[in-house]
Amino acid sequence: MGTEALVRRIGYEFKDPALLRRALTHRSYGMPHNERLEFLGDSVLSCAIATHLYHLHTRVQEGDLSRMRAHLVKELTLSEIASSLNLGDCLKLGEGELKSGGFRRPSILADTLEAIIGAVYLDGGFASAEQMIARLFEPLMKGLDPKTLGKDPKTLLQEYLQGRKLPLPSYTVLSISGEAHEQHFEVECAIPDLGVRACGGGVSRRSAEQQAAGSVMQILNSEG
Amino acid sequence: MGTEALVRRIGYEFKDPALLRRALTHRSYGMPHNERLEFLGDSVLSCAIATHLYHLHTRVQEGDLSRMRAHLVKELTLSEIASSLNLGDCLKLGEGELKSGGFRRPSILADTLEAIIGAVYLDGGFASAEQMIARLFEPLMKGLDPKTLGKDPKTLLQEYLQGRKLPLPSYTVLSISGEAHEQHFEVECAIPDLGVRACGGGVSRRSAEQQAAGSVMQILNSEG
Repeated sequence: MGTEALVRRIGYEFKDPALLRRALTHRSYGMPHNERLEFLGDSVLSCAIATHLYHLHTRVQEGDLSRMRAHLVKELTLSEIASSLNLGDCLKLGEGELKSGGFRRPSILADTLEAIIGAVYLDGGFASAEQMIARLFEPLMKGLDPKTLGKDPKTLLQEYLQGRKLPLPSYTVLSISGEAHEQHFEVECAIPDLGVRACGGGVSRRSAEQQAAGSVMQILNSEG
Repeated sequence: MGTEALVRRIGYEFKDPALLRRALTHRSYGMPHNERLEFLGDSVLSCAIATHLYHLHTRVQEGDLSRMRAHLVKELTLSEIASSLNLGDCLKLGEGELKSGGFRRPSILADTLEAIIGAVYLDGGFASAEQMIARLFEPLMKGLDPKTLGKDPKTLLQEYLQGRKLPLPSYTVLSISGEAHEQHFEVECAIPDLGVRACGGGVSRRSAEQQAAGSVMQILNSEG
């Protein structure tokens, strides 16, 4: 796929198309690659997101603003936005990365999105980068709740229970299945005092626990 | 002291002077304080410094750029710039902080400088903040060497020795003096293979070791 579709999706037309080509070039492909643009884009993104959060949440204090920003600029969020732009189709990767599926690796996708932000910033200035970031991130920003965001389900569950002076939940591994390189964990999270329990699954014990804690939180929230 | 002198030193005249007052107000003084401005200023500073380093060092890779930026935005650097602006004289602090000397605490000075940057950004836009940052940081930025910067003396000494396949230096505490809350350490750093040794002092063992390593590096560099 060419980059025309990408240009339409990001909504920014480059004066210097070489900048976009560089932003799409992973270091495995050779020079000039996108790492310096990524350095720049990372801080432009952080600044633009901070600005939007500052104006969107006029009564939220610094700690919560920081946690919201951290959630919005973390690798997972960036790689999801990159996927929604089909960035993987436009990447220039070296042989090895191509064969190992680098075009769908979250870290590469996230870094490339930052590099594109850096390229737009160099090409069109801070305002252009800020506008593109607003378009890409606004749906996510509006959905954020400063009170819960950035906190994982286990933390939220723990805070919920501590607020009610209840004992902490217990987590029990129910099963581990699959080969060593792609194991699957099933974990149960239980709150005996409330008679609530739920299961969760994941590729690690930690992620299964988070899933299970999230399900328990859903039960507790739906019970009011 | 009023803020007129500060305005002259930072070289930016506020359209909305209330923003500068807020930037100078520590949370111990009461609302509205400067923490949200500090959140904003922190990321504006990071972005402006990244931009300057990107253009100043056209062949330096991302890792070295990141280390240079980290050095420029760290608390010590910010508090030194804040001191050179006599920021401490303009701070609004609560009783407790006033009595305990908060106006010269590095963390408070550094945070206040970030808050001022955030205030200039809100008042005059990114370009105004960037210009002020350039004025305040340019002398420091020009003095940076991407090869050594951000590395502490112990790391530099270790790299020097490893590059020559020599054994690592030895550090020996020579003395510890003073009361528990203000101890002074004297440490010797020795490179037996080169017949070089030097002493260093500091308020912690670590800082004394860094001092000693720095003195050894000076001897080695002066010997060519």
